Amino acid sequence: PPSPPQPPSLPLALCRAFSNNKILVELDESSGVATMKFKSPPVNSLSLDFLTEFCISLEKLENDRACRGVILTSAIPKIFSSGLDITEMCGKSMEHYAEFWRAVQEMWLRLYGSNMVTVAAVNGSSPAGGCLVALSCDYRIMVENPKFSIGLNEAQLGIVAPFWFKDTFVNVVGHRVAERSLQLGSLHPTPEAHRIGLVDELVPEDKLQEKAAAVMAQWLALPDHARQLTKSMMRKAVLDRLVAHREEDIQNFISFISKESIQKSLRMYMEMLKKKKS
Amino acid sequence: PPSPPQPPSLPLALCRAFSNNKILVELDESSGVATMKFKSPPVNSLSLDFLTEFCISLEKLENDRACRGVILTSAIPKIFSSGLDITEMCGKSMEHYAEFWRAVQEMWLRLYGSNMVTVAAVNGSSPAGGCLVALSCDYRIMVENPKFSIGLNEAQLGIVAPFWFKDTFVNVVGHRVAERSLQLGSLHPTPEAHRIGLVDELVPEDKLQEKAAAVMAQWLALPDHARQLTKSMMRKAVLDRLVAHREEDIQNFISFISKESIQKSLRMYMEMLKKKKS
Amino acid sequence: PPSPPQPPSLPLALCRAFSNNKILVELDESSGVATMKFKSPPVNSLSLDFLTEFCISLEKLENDRACRGVILTSAIPKIFSSGLDITEMCGKSMEHYAEFWRAVQEMWLRLYGSNMVTVAAVNGSSPAGGCLVALSCDYRIMVENPKFSIGLNEAQLGIVAPFWFKDTFVNVVGHRVAERSLQLGSLHPTPEAHRIGLVDELVPEDKLQEKAAAVMAQWLALPDHARQLTKSMMRKAVLDRLVAHREEDIQNFISFISKESIQKSLRMYMEMLKKKKS
Repeated sequence: PPSPPQPPSLPLALCRAFSNNKILVELDESSGVATMKFKSPPVNSLSLDFLTEFCISLEKLENDRACRGVILTSAIPKIFSSGLDITEMCGKSMEHYAEFWRAVQEMWLRLYGSNMVTVAAVNGSSPAGGCLVALSCDYRIMVENPKFSIGLNEAQLGIVAPFWFKDTFVNVVGHRVAERSLQLGSLHPTPEAHRIGLVDELVPEDKLQEKAAAVMAQWLALPDHARQLTKSMMRKAVLDRLVAHREEDIQNFISFISKESIQKSLRMYMEMLKKKKS
Repeated sequence: PPSPPQPPSLPLALCRAFSNNKILVELDESSGVATMKFKSPPVNSLSLDFLTEFCISLEKLENDRACRGVILTSAIPKIFSSGLDITEMCGKSMEHYAEFWRAVQEMWLRLYGSNMVTVAAVNGSSPAGGCLVALSCDYRIMVENPKFSIGLNEAQLGIVAPFWFKDTFVNVVGHRVAERSLQLGSLHPTPEAHRIGLVDELVPEDKLQEKAAAVMAQWLALPDHARQLTKSMMRKAVLDRLVAHREEDIQNFISFISKESIQKSLRMYMEMLKKKKS
Repeated sequence: PPSPPQPPSLPLALCRAFSNNKILVELDESSGVATMKFKSPPVNSLSLDFLTEFCISLEKLENDRACRGVILTSAIPKIFSSGLDITEMCGKSMEHYAEFWRAVQEMWLRLYGSNMVTVAAVNGSSPAGGCLVALSCDYRIMVENPKFSIGLNEAQLGIVAPFWFKDTFVNVVGHRVAERSLQLGSLHPTPEAHRIGLVDELVPEDKLQEKAAAVMAQWLALPDHARQLTKSMMRKAVLDRLVAHREEDIQNFISFISKESIQKSLRMYMEMLKKKKS
């Protein structure tokens, strides 16, 4: 059986450069389960800083023999993660776009390819990149709340989900559901998200932690080695595809995002968000 | 993101050679939605003439900036389309078989790869090639009528659906349902067609147009560019596969269809249809 | 259309070397339907002898023009097949491991690629390799009994299902269900097995034979040639993948199974089974 993919290590300098302030990491050594709690107000958007901290935290846990599983959840009410930070994609230099996109790729390569058991405890809405984070875990539990929604809604903003977002989505919900959902940029309310298989289970908010711990225990009951090799076998083709086209994917992102029409619609979207707030 | 596939243009001469008499095309410029109504009695079979007209009509709409979406439906009661015209496959020359098959391929390449939103309003039975037409759209609404059925029933006639019919089917219903349905040559009654995901929605006959317009409006609410690129990303692999093997696929069809055993069973099938009518 | 894969013939010597005593084969010439009944106590485990006999029996039927379909079932109460025989994988020579694994591959290549209609009448539990046998048929009927379960539970034993077990599973239940089930090494109770599509139908024990015969008749109503080519079209990619990597897959198996850690856990598992019995 093939060994799981090994993304290149982040330089150690990065570890020192960023203090851990956007993600709260707690490791329960008795169970071997860590929790990564997103606390980057207002909406846990995936900024370059957030992504870098995410990768460093995940790598530390990955290399910590006391840790066998991670639960991802949010410390901010009503939102799991709002997805990629639009300010990182607007009015910045080519170099910045490249650095940002590489960090998005890195986050996904590490999370989708993680040797640990990964459970998303989705306690709020989770559009676009936030949905990708959940999709990349082994299991998704979502709080049953008609106001929460989840989906890869990029098309709504006039942008296109990259092929590896799509591959990850297809692996979860199948080709037809993905085709329709991606083209419509659907944000699925929780019951629908459950029905189409985007999330595995719905629970009341006050049962989320308990349920996540129970699911984690069920997955950790398996011998790590066999489970890891099996996971790698299921995900390798899709991971390898990005690894093989990584630089091309960065160039695609840069040339797409730096188009004046795209920049304009992102600026309008940000204006709209600002007005909404005030 | 890759650009959507561009099938080679039909020569302009063809546009002049065929008047538009098997398909009624209406474009509502206010909504940007065209309707292609099949009216080729008795059963809208996909003859060479029908297919040529279909491709020309679709290409015109594709190039018309006033048109963003197409609804495909039938002007003939109880039948959407009966599929490939058997008379084109029986007792004809090799050259004719090649020309016919190229037209079938062309129809699918243009429809499955269309940049427009395509909605099938299936108001009657839709076997074989008729089912392929529906499968190639973005969304399928079917009239709820226990007498109507839909499916790739080629195996029932002793013939084999080509790989790209299969690929299109798998993309809609998944591998297992396709494997079983194709081997049994199943014609699925409407409730079953809905249950297995072959059609997205069932409606009473008198609500079909209204529903098709509502679905179209929902899809057209998205920015064209992002939706088109997303559609292409989902369908490109399957479209490219036929483009890469197009001549081989034509040769396969010719050598299969010109077998005496196949010719004989097609003749018997046509005799049976004639008797049924009288 | 591509011709179905032709695995290399077993040498005739093998036919003489093994008498038919682990599988009872009956052919009803009037219907063209054979039954292969597993009767290798205590649990129909897939030993080298069983697999060799299975391949020879299947090949004989495949070449018998009077036979068009096969029903696989068990003559032993409560168990369909317990899967690969662990004694063949424990404390043996490298040559033995290679010979055994080649026989497992051969069984799957012949069954998954069979030109006959294959129906699994699953009248008992069917873990691991037993589940693979059922998954490789065209249709699965299982006895509705809350005590029976089925699944690829390799991960529970600390081992990894080979890629072609996985491919076969994904073709039946889809990527997401397979990913979760394989990582958890799930044994699905009958209602769950039906819900996830692992089996097509549940029946009371006393209706199993009748139902299997009815399903077989439905599949045999189709012209053989078209059905066979369609089946091959659906399964060829996955069959070809093992054919292309067969020796590599054997080497992988040998190096994995001969690890001391794996040998140890298999020995412990066998000890546990022995204690359970006494």
